[in-house]
Amino acid sequence: MKDDTITLDHGSGGKLSHRLILDTVLPVFDDPALRCLDDGAVLETEGGRIAFSTDTYVVDPLFFPGGNIGDLAVNGTVNDLAMCGAVPLYLSVGMIIEEGFLRRDLDGILETMQRAARAASVRIVTGDTKVVPRGAVDKIFINTAGIGVVPEGVCVSGRNARIGDRVLVSGTLADHGMTILTRREGLRFESSLQSDTAPLNHMVADMLDDCGGDIHALRDPTRGGVGTSLNEIAESSGVTIRIHEDRIPVKRAVAGLCELLGIDPLYVANEGKLVAVVAPEAAFRVLDRMHAHPMGRDARIIGEVTAADIVPVIMTTRIGGTRIVDMPTGEQLPRIC
Amino acid sequence: MKDDTITLDHGSGGKLSHRLILDTVLPVFDDPALRCLDDGAVLETEGGRIAFSTDTYVVDPLFFPGGNIGDLAVNGTVNDLAMCGAVPLYLSVGMIIEEGFLRRDLDGILETMQRAARAASVRIVTGDTKVVPRGAVDKIFINTAGIGVVPEGVCVSGRNARIGDRVLVSGTLADHGMTILTRREGLRFESSLQSDTAPLNHMVADMLDDCGGDIHALRDPTRGGVGTSLNEIAESSGVTIRIHEDRIPVKRAVAGLCELLGIDPLYVANEGKLVAVVAPEAAFRVLDRMHAHPMGRDARIIGEVTAADIVPVIMTTRIGGTRIVDMPTGEQLPRIC
Ligand SMILES: Nc1ncnc2c1ncn2[C@@H]1O[C@H](COP(=O)(O)OP(=O)(O)OP(=O)(O)O)[C@@H](O)[C@H]1O
Ligand SMILES: Nc1ncnc2c1ncn2[C@@H]1O[C@H](COP(=O)(O)OP(=O)(O)OP(=O)(O)O)[C@@H](O)[C@H]1O
Ligand SMILES: [Mg+2]
Ligand SMILES: [Mg+2]
Ligand SMILES: [Mg+2]
Ligand SMILES: [Mg+2]
Ligand SMILES: [Mg+2]
Ligand SMILES: [Mg+2]
Repeated sequence: MKDDTITLDHGSGGKLSHRLILDTVLPVFDDPALRCLDDGAVLETEGGRIAFSTDTYVVDPLFFPGGNIGDLAVNGTVNDLAMCGAVPLYLSVGMIIEEGFLRRDLDGILETMQRAARAASVRIVTGDTKVVPRGAVDKIFINTAGIGVVPEGVCVSGRNARIGDRVLVSGTLADHGMTILTRREGLRFESSLQSDTAPLNHMVADMLDDCGGDIHALRDPTRGGVGTSLNEIAESSGVTIRIHEDRIPVKRAVAGLCELLGIDPLYVANEGKLVAVVAPEAAFRVLDRMHAHPMGRDARIIGEVTAADIVPVIMTTRIGGTRIVDMPTGEQLPRIC
Repeated sequence: MKDDTITLDHGSGGKLSHRLILDTVLPVFDDPALRCLDDGAVLETEGGRIAFSTDTYVVDPLFFPGGNIGDLAVNGTVNDLAMCGAVPLYLSVGMIIEEGFLRRDLDGILETMQRAARAASVRIVTGDTKVVPRGAVDKIFINTAGIGVVPEGVCVSGRNARIGDRVLVSGTLADHGMTILTRREGLRFESSLQSDTAPLNHMVADMLDDCGGDIHALRDPTRGGVGTSLNEIAESSGVTIRIHEDRIPVKRAVAGLCELLGIDPLYVANEGKLVAVVAPEAAFRVLDRMHAHPMGRDARIIGEVTAADIVPVIMTTRIGGTRIVDMPTGEQLPRIC
């Protein structure tokens, strides 16, 4: 019976989300661009390649340390475009507002969106506003879609990871997800945690500028975290990715809370981080580029790509053991983004 | 106090929607493309002009005579792109699903979307799926965003209506809105009404093909109906539009129900109709083109553009009087689309 309905796990970003897209969406919306399942679609046009992506934001609470639904919605689509190797240019904004929503809060969200758009050098050029009766939506949900241009010579896709490549992350993991968790009703921890929501496009432009052809895959580890992103890349490319637990950057406070709650930071959502799969000879150059950028100060090489093994992602643990990094089945917390 | 919150009227598509966009959204998202307030944004790129548009669909009920939320969502964005004079090419799909939603219904909606995309010759290339806990959204909401290409020589905008131009509608008014109304809980009329949801891009391409430069403004009269669209065009162009009640096409059954309920069909939502403002010498040629197309069989010339008068839109009534066609203040029925 459970198979007859959509469950929260279908929105986790993990295994069941993946299955829903593979089994339900892809066979119907059969399209070569969609089939790549990258962060956005890359489309050939007369004027060159454009990237197109969308996300809807349903985060609860709307306002949280480090940001609100507004910058999350702008940065999220900016980052998905950047993960296609594109320079993000234009955004649309679709809002669904619950009757009775405070104008003050709406103003705050709009201003945050505009500030975020400026920071990412994108323009908000079109939109839509629906208002629904009380109870038909929880406060406000925001969709953004975005268009970017893919520079010539850039060819970034989850299918392009090659044996020998190095795997990099741009900074500490799990900041966004754990921040939201601490802010949820009934879960009020005192903490200094803060969302990492941020635009990654400028850093990605720097990385591509220097090492264009050597950057094979990029992904922003949002819902489902780095564990899920690595699985997606490994599966799409038909390789195995090995990572090393002792190289994975996690802030002390975040690590402590994860430990306390029994949550693996590898599966927690990030909103201002990326995973990069890079040719081995370029790995340190890319790392330097990332370090030079405020959004990549804590970047690390966390692993490498090997021939396809029994499972897509394997981790060497701190104590020297080996652990399978599977896709997460269930959702740790709904409405994380 | 009411000013402190968002009300259903802010989602009506009428006067208060307009004010919300003008007073709250535009000053913050300050952008030349947005400022036109056309159905989508037209953007100059190296490869030519592209159009970009978005809409979110919150219709209740999800399934109704003539369609469901799926074809509404595809046709709606296809039509907004066509109203920019663009050839629609690519769509994104963002779904927000309530936990417990039936897979069967999801499958039905996805299949309808794909069929609608095929019919409109557009590709669904990227998307997003969020699942939220029971009660956080009512069943399913769908956002679509779309990209199209504006052919050279085409210059269509709500600001381009000129004195002497003729005003055309592509068919009967109020079909969609009155159909939804009859299907709402507590309002079960026996009726043969059917939504007019349909893609208009092929008809628009024919119209532009023949009379490109003579088509000055196009708008799809969705929320707020033809009355609102005419006000928007008249205001943007700084003119007055005069229409003639006896030329306005309304199906007999729809007209009857409107009369019974005291609803003016001029303000009821359409999902497969357009308003065109056309140079006088081209009006009959455009009309012929519309008549030749299944979506324009009932097209009519309903009025003309004059110099700016006391009000933006005036109607000559059936009995020869004159009536102001104001923007509607309130919402007749929320969640119409
Ligand atoms: N409703 C849908 N229709 C079409 N494609 C979809 C839909 N939902 C998801 N997809 C596709 O599935 C892939 C995975 O989507 P997903 O939303 O998980 O990626 P993401 O946006 O990078 O992650 P997140 O939403 O957590 O930020 C993408 O290629 C996306 O285009
Ligand atoms: N949240 C928003 N952010 C930016 N622009 C917006 C927003 N909401 C509406 N707009 C802009 O306001 C104008 C009117 O939008 P509206 O949604 O009424 O048009 P439409 O899509 O043609 O109508 P409908 O939504 O009834 O189909 C458009 O130019 C749109 O881009
Ligand atoms: Mg992504
Ligand atoms: Mg995303
Ligand atoms: Mg709209
Ligand atoms: Mg429109
Ligand atoms: Mg629209
Ligand atoms: Mg997504």
